[in-house]
Amino acid sequence: MKRSGVITLTTDFGSSDWYVGAMKGVILGINPRAEIVDLTHGVGRGDIMSAGFTLRSSYGYFPCGTVHAVVVDPGVGSERKIICTEWQGYVFIAPDNGVLWFCLGEAALRVARTVVRRSLRLERVSSTFHGRDIIAPAAAHLSKGLPVRRLGPPAGECVRLDFPAPDERKGGLLAEVIHVDHFGNLTTNVSEASPVLREPSGVSVTIRGKTISGISGSYQAVPAGRLLALCGSSGFLEIAVNGGSAAGKLGARRGTPLTVKWAQESGVRKRD
Amino acid sequence: MKRSGVITLTTDFGSSDWYVGAMKGVILGINPRAEIVDLTHGVGRGDIMSAGFTLRSSYGYFPCGTVHAVVVDPGVGSERKIICTEWQGYVFIAPDNGVLWFCLGEAALRVARTVVRRSLRLERVSSTFHGRDIIAPAAAHLSKGLPVRRLGPPAGECVRLDFPAPDERKGGLLAEVIHVDHFGNLTTNVSEASPVLREPSGVSVTIRGKTISGISGSYQAVPAGRLLALCGSSGFLEIAVNGGSAAGKLGARRGTPLTVKWAQESGVRKRD
Amino acid sequence: MKRSGVITLTTDFGSSDWYVGAMKGVILGINPRAEIVDLTHGVGRGDIMSAGFTLRSSYGYFPCGTVHAVVVDPGVGSERKIICTEWQGYVFIAPDNGVLWFCLGEAALRVARTVVRRSLRLERVSSTFHGRDIIAPAAAHLSKGLPVRRLGPPAGECVRLDFPAPDERKGGLLAEVIHVDHFGNLTTNVSEASPVLREPSGVSVTIRGKTISGISGSYQAVPAGRLLALCGSSGFLEIAVNGGSAAGKLGARRGTPLTVKWAQESGVRKRD
Repeated sequence: MKRSGVITLTTDFGSSDWYVGAMKGVILGINPRAEIVDLTHGVGRGDIMSAGFTLRSSYGYFPCGTVHAVVVDPGVGSERKIICTEWQGYVFIAPDNGVLWFCLGEAALRVARTVVRRSLRLERVSSTFHGRDIIAPAAAHLSKGLPVRRLGPPAGECVRLDFPAPDERKGGLLAEVIHVDHFGNLTTNVSEASPVLREPSGVSVTIRGKTISGISGSYQAVPAGRLLALCGSSGFLEIAVNGGSAAGKLGARRGTPLTVKWAQESGVRKRD
Repeated sequence: MKRSGVITLTTDFGSSDWYVGAMKGVILGINPRAEIVDLTHGVGRGDIMSAGFTLRSSYGYFPCGTVHAVVVDPGVGSERKIICTEWQGYVFIAPDNGVLWFCLGEAALRVARTVVRRSLRLERVSSTFHGRDIIAPAAAHLSKGLPVRRLGPPAGECVRLDFPAPDERKGGLLAEVIHVDHFGNLTTNVSEASPVLREPSGVSVTIRGKTISGISGSYQAVPAGRLLALCGSSGFLEIAVNGGSAAGKLGARRGTPLTVKWAQESGVRKRD
Repeated sequence: MKRSGVITLTTDFGSSDWYVGAMKGVILGINPRAEIVDLTHGVGRGDIMSAGFTLRSSYGYFPCGTVHAVVVDPGVGSERKIICTEWQGYVFIAPDNGVLWFCLGEAALRVARTVVRRSLRLERVSSTFHGRDIIAPAAAHLSKGLPVRRLGPPAGECVRLDFPAPDERKGGLLAEVIHVDHFGNLTTNVSEASPVLREPSGVSVTIRGKTISGISGSYQAVPAGRLLALCGSSGFLEIAVNGGSAAGKLGARRGTPLTVKWAQESGVRKRD
């Protein structure tokens, strides 16, 4: 696969230390023409699911041949592997802690490799910063065209972290909030392709005791300050407030449950 | 106009989600040689004035032919237009919500175009993220040289949001704070070119009950911890504290009024 | 020295204003091919030591010929110099306030130059933003190959800010915390090369009344939630909590003292 020269970084490093900068220095030393893009460094400390969802929601917007590197690595220095896989025209490299499983699913991990080749590491590998010492140099070499199979042997068994599917219930789905964004919008695990959303006007969504009738076309479809449900930009059902924060209004967070009912079953009127 | 290949981004997206990253992915897919610069993603949610002032204070420091994109877009998904204009050697693209009017003034908007050409959008346009689906691809094409007129027809009437001029009063100006920066410095709407500042040593500035006599040459011109007024780096009168936060010391914020009096009218001594 | 085209920026500007963006605009206007890397803009306001430690911990990971620019500049507009030096294959430019002394030590400053050449500045130099008006354009010219000596005359005496060496005590060292990172890890001023760490298993570290026995190989070497000491990625002894925040657990911050005792002197058991 031809490489785009783009490398994305997703970490929980925050922005007050030099950690991200040091990784970029290492990358530019190996591939001076790399184009490095920060996906986010604001993943919660050690929050593997959040890192996985971040990458899942955005990797496909990059040019084919982009290398996506994740360094959310609470197990750094332990025996956990670092793995790399090529999938759907992209290369992914990350600690084997479930983050790529969550992002890509099982099939993508079946072709993964373990990153072990010593000549691709910094000369001195610390026990606390494999992002800089192993992942950054590997990503740089990958961005120059190094085939994934050259990193090491097949990874074999990888850590499993399944994307949570909603439970099918009589008349609908029992779902949950999987991401709360900067605006307080709540992304749920209900795909916009789910059959339950096929008749948008009749669907009802209940979360934290509030029921929303119908799926709106945009934030502006309801008066300012009102709750609404719509299909968000990540391809999932989203709960929002026009001009406000649904997380704040509802006291909701990741993991908060919600129910989504078919048109004919709900029989509910808008009560927000 | 020749393009520099530089694209700046100004948004209210914060840094914890993948939204900025996804825009960059889209841009690099269309123009792999684009140089993308974050102006800031820390604009307050939906704060159009702040985004306008950010861009107004910095756009001129970029090379000619830079494309400046703003995505502060509380009206996303509604009927609001997306507009683009060429002005003073730069290209600007943003939702039509007043942000470019505030930044550039009316004349720049008279030559604006509405961004409607479908072939310049992502194949699938969401109703909640036009920054990624419409503005990013258009900015990428613009950065490669696409003429602004090719985006769509003349924009016609645009949303008006005038930069607030200070009121002239007997003996001076009634002004206001238009920006509070990271250091707590207060930028006012009094241009350094204003006649009221012509005799700096005699001017007096009163804000939140405190009066500052004279315009200083630098933060260091007063003892540590003291209030001062000076001409700031954005070209406006600024209220600051040497080594401290004027916002904190005064309890001031955007919109806080102040008066600036001519030399001969003030008759005030330093009372900070 | 050949230049890499990379320029790093370390500032206390935060991320909510346009200050960093304006510097990048200036740089790209002079060197359109510059590769600009943010080390961090989250240095505490005016915190010279922190900026110095940031750069000290990361500059060596960049390709040779990188220009490292620091704008933590509480004295902007005063008589303080701006200085530039070439050291170990890198170029450094910063206000003369001790930041480069702290980062590089005295010898590096002996060959420093004062940045005075007017033709390398913006046409109009403000009194409050020399990062944009003097340092950014100089860094851009340096990144294109301008020799350091062309910036101005030898700097002469520079502001001294020594890296704090631990005090040798009977049986060990009296040391201190010099950095607290995003994860709450405590970096100390005890180099991993210090003789006191030669027999890692017998060393004991006491901080805020807690004693840690032995130097671990990784965060995972102790049970989750437990304190440990290890050699961190910056080359210094670090105090951490597996999966947690040592700063939080201990109530420690920069300047918090600790003692490190030789194997044979400690006679202490793990008491965390």
